[in-house]
Amino acid sequence: MKKVILTYGTFDLFHTGHLSLLNRLKALGDELVVGVTTDEFNALRGKQTIFGFEDRIQIVRNLKCVDRAISLQNGEQKADDIRSYGVSIFGMGDDWEGRFDDLRVHCEVIYLPRTENISSTQIRKLLEGLGRTYVSDPGKALEPAASIVGPFDGKVARKDER
Amino acid sequence: MKKVILTYGTFDLFHTGHLSLLNRLKALGDELVVGVTTDEFNALRGKQTIFGFEDRIQIVRNLKCVDRAISLQNGEQKADDIRSYGVSIFGMGDDWEGRFDDLRVHCEVIYLPRTENISSTQIRKLLEGLGRTYVSDPGKALEPAASIVGPFDGKVARKDER
Repeated sequence: MKKVILTYGTFDLFHTGHLSLLNRLKALGDELVVGVTTDEFNALRGKQTIFGFEDRIQIVRNLKCVDRAISLQNGEQKADDIRSYGVSIFGMGDDWEGRFDDLRVHCEVIYLPRTENISSTQIRKLLEGLGRTYVSDPGKALEPAASIVGPFDGKVARKDER
Repeated sequence: MKKVILTYGTFDLFHTGHLSLLNRLKALGDELVVGVTTDEFNALRGKQTIFGFEDRIQIVRNLKCVDRAISLQNGEQKADDIRSYGVSIFGMGDDWEGRFDDLRVHCEVIYLPRTENISSTQIRKLLEGLGRTYVSDPGKALEPAASIVGPFDGKVARKDER
């Protein structure tokens, strides 16, 4: 019988940490279903993304390891998704450890280690970029950056980008 | 006979503008080969990326539309690549219009329109984020943002990110 894996995520500013997690989840079975949070759901959670839902799901849907990309519209659809897609394993990064244990009545639930090699380099860049001013509160320091990096890549510096 | 398409890019901060171009190129033939600029080549061109070569090529290699991802190490390998991979069409975004016309002795060269829908939204975000201070020189205003956005997504706000 086909083994189906399910995971959820926002996948804003897609990077190899996301990719590594998805590839490792896919390797556990035959088919990977990925739920991408809608903008409305993110707004309810007080979370703002750089890229909108359509952009975020497009990238996920176009990955070799992803067999089906669906929308995650609220916190209540999880059991329905597990039933609808015949899910054997629900998997998340271990930064979510324990948070989905209630799904164990429906299927196996696993938490995979997040890969850290990406972020350590970038933390260094952060420190350089900020001149160590904001280190006590990096989240706050990064808010303006998050709001403007989109156009840096998408249009303003388009020619430089290749 | 199999029709092979070749394109080159940096693909930093991968977004749907990149994806759309790659999907449209793939639709022109049977096999898409994508050259990703190395960090050394970018350094020679005075160009800095948020993500290193391995991260950038990993994402490209994992896309459904990409059959082969190779490194672009310098400006001199283009004719060799066209020969090695049996390329019929070399394609780039039209922000590069005319810049690869010298390859017309080897194969067909085309320039596809860039999709603009992503960046218009993001320009709005840029203006909001910057409070219209830097609008006369957006490239300069975005340099610090580019250096710090990596960790915002990769580690500092890891839990918020999903």
